[in-house]
Amino acid sequence: MALPDDEAQHLTRVLRLKPGAPIRVFNGRGAEFDAVVERAGKNAVQVRIGRTHDPVAEARVAITVAQAVLKRDKMDDVVRDAVMMGAAAIQPMVTTRSEITLASLSRGRRLERWSSIAVASAKQCGRAVVPAILEPISFEGAVASISALTLPAPCLMFVEPGGTLAATPIGELDPVPPPRATVLIGPEGGWTADEIERGAAVSRQIVLGSRTLRADAMSTIALTALFTLWRDV
Amino acid sequence: MALPDDEAQHLTRVLRLKPGAPIRVFNGRGAEFDAVVERAGKNAVQVRIGRTHDPVAEARVAITVAQAVLKRDKMDDVVRDAVMMGAAAIQPMVTTRSEITLASLSRGRRLERWSSIAVASAKQCGRAVVPAILEPISFEGAVASISALTLPAPCLMFVEPGGTLAATPIGELDPVPPPRATVLIGPEGGWTADEIERGAAVSRQIVLGSRTLRADAMSTIALTALFTLWRDV
Repeated sequence: MALPDDEAQHLTRVLRLKPGAPIRVFNGRGAEFDAVVERAGKNAVQVRIGRTHDPVAEARVAITVAQAVLKRDKMDDVVRDAVMMGAAAIQPMVTTRSEITLASLSRGRRLERWSSIAVASAKQCGRAVVPAILEPISFEGAVASISALTLPAPCLMFVEPGGTLAATPIGELDPVPPPRATVLIGPEGGWTADEIERGAAVSRQIVLGSRTLRADAMSTIALTALFTLWRDV
Repeated sequence: MALPDDEAQHLTRVLRLKPGAPIRVFNGRGAEFDAVVERAGKNAVQVRIGRTHDPVAEARVAITVAQAVLKRDKMDDVVRDAVMMGAAAIQPMVTTRSEITLASLSRGRRLERWSSIAVASAKQCGRAVVPAILEPISFEGAVASISALTLPAPCLMFVEPGGTLAATPIGELDPVPPPRATVLIGPEGGWTADEIERGAAVSRQIVLGSRTLRADAMSTIALTALFTLWRDV
């Protein structure tokens, strides 16, 4: 079978592999195979698929990370790291303080960019499933889609320590893992009071420790804490 | 009282504060005070100290992060984030695959640089204690100082999944928090087999999930997982 164009170019131009070279390929949906390079042309690579390889286990709790789009390339890093940490899906959100619009995300083809970062990160960390990067939506859209969920799935909105609302310390969450969950993570400037109020209608508000954490580290920290709490590590 | 030179310059040149401006100062050892700017000259700032402020609580478990020095400015980020995550101290280590020597760290005055990053990060995250950045040592030095510890303190060496040695999944650690602990975190290229063997003599080897995690995210992930496990969040 033929490799996709970008993987074919990576194989011939970066890795400089020749026919006969053993490789491993994955379909991004959980299957992984041994393979051998058959032909390596300038732009097209044919591989022969061999036996199935046991892929790395996915997390038992399917967590969707609904992340406010961060500035510049910080969102790229968040996508890379959320894939590495085992997120099931990533939902980019435009919130009041996101400093970007849905229209400019679309013009900049950011979804395509994040999707290829997700593929690269899955390869890097040895994950055989590439999580879906969902079409960016507004915070209101995210709230609406969460309230429309019919399956039981806790939604956890991470808020800064010392906010006015009574938030639950993460250590007080139920240690029994749910089948799936959504986490809402805000932008550099934080949530507005209005967003916190609207989020409270569909989510439980969670605080993690007593220090102010960097927005771009928050998804990694939240995923690590939840998977540890739920003994899914 | 007078502010230190660098803080005085930050106050006058970046924040551009004038006499009468209310500020908050901390001594880096857990005390935090309201204060008012009295005089703001070009290079010297006098402040009047007011009432004590309740500082953000420190973690109950004092964790020392013994971190292999990473490439370029990645170590700066690790120092910044380990302070934010609540580490009690940071011990930079030169391991076999660190690609830097103790001599060049010393010539580059890296300890001074990391110490000022620690101060900046404590201010940023609202922490009133600045963790000590210890003098860099070799991996052998770290092992020797850990085996010389007289107080009971678990030492946890984080290793990659799928290594040959039987490592403990982090979820199987005792959830009863110890008073203090040391974590050993390797460089980009990982530990050598020899280091894993020598580390095993003084530490328990811990694996976190089944994916390969980025070396520069590892200290944040390890601290989050341990503080969650020990309900110290």
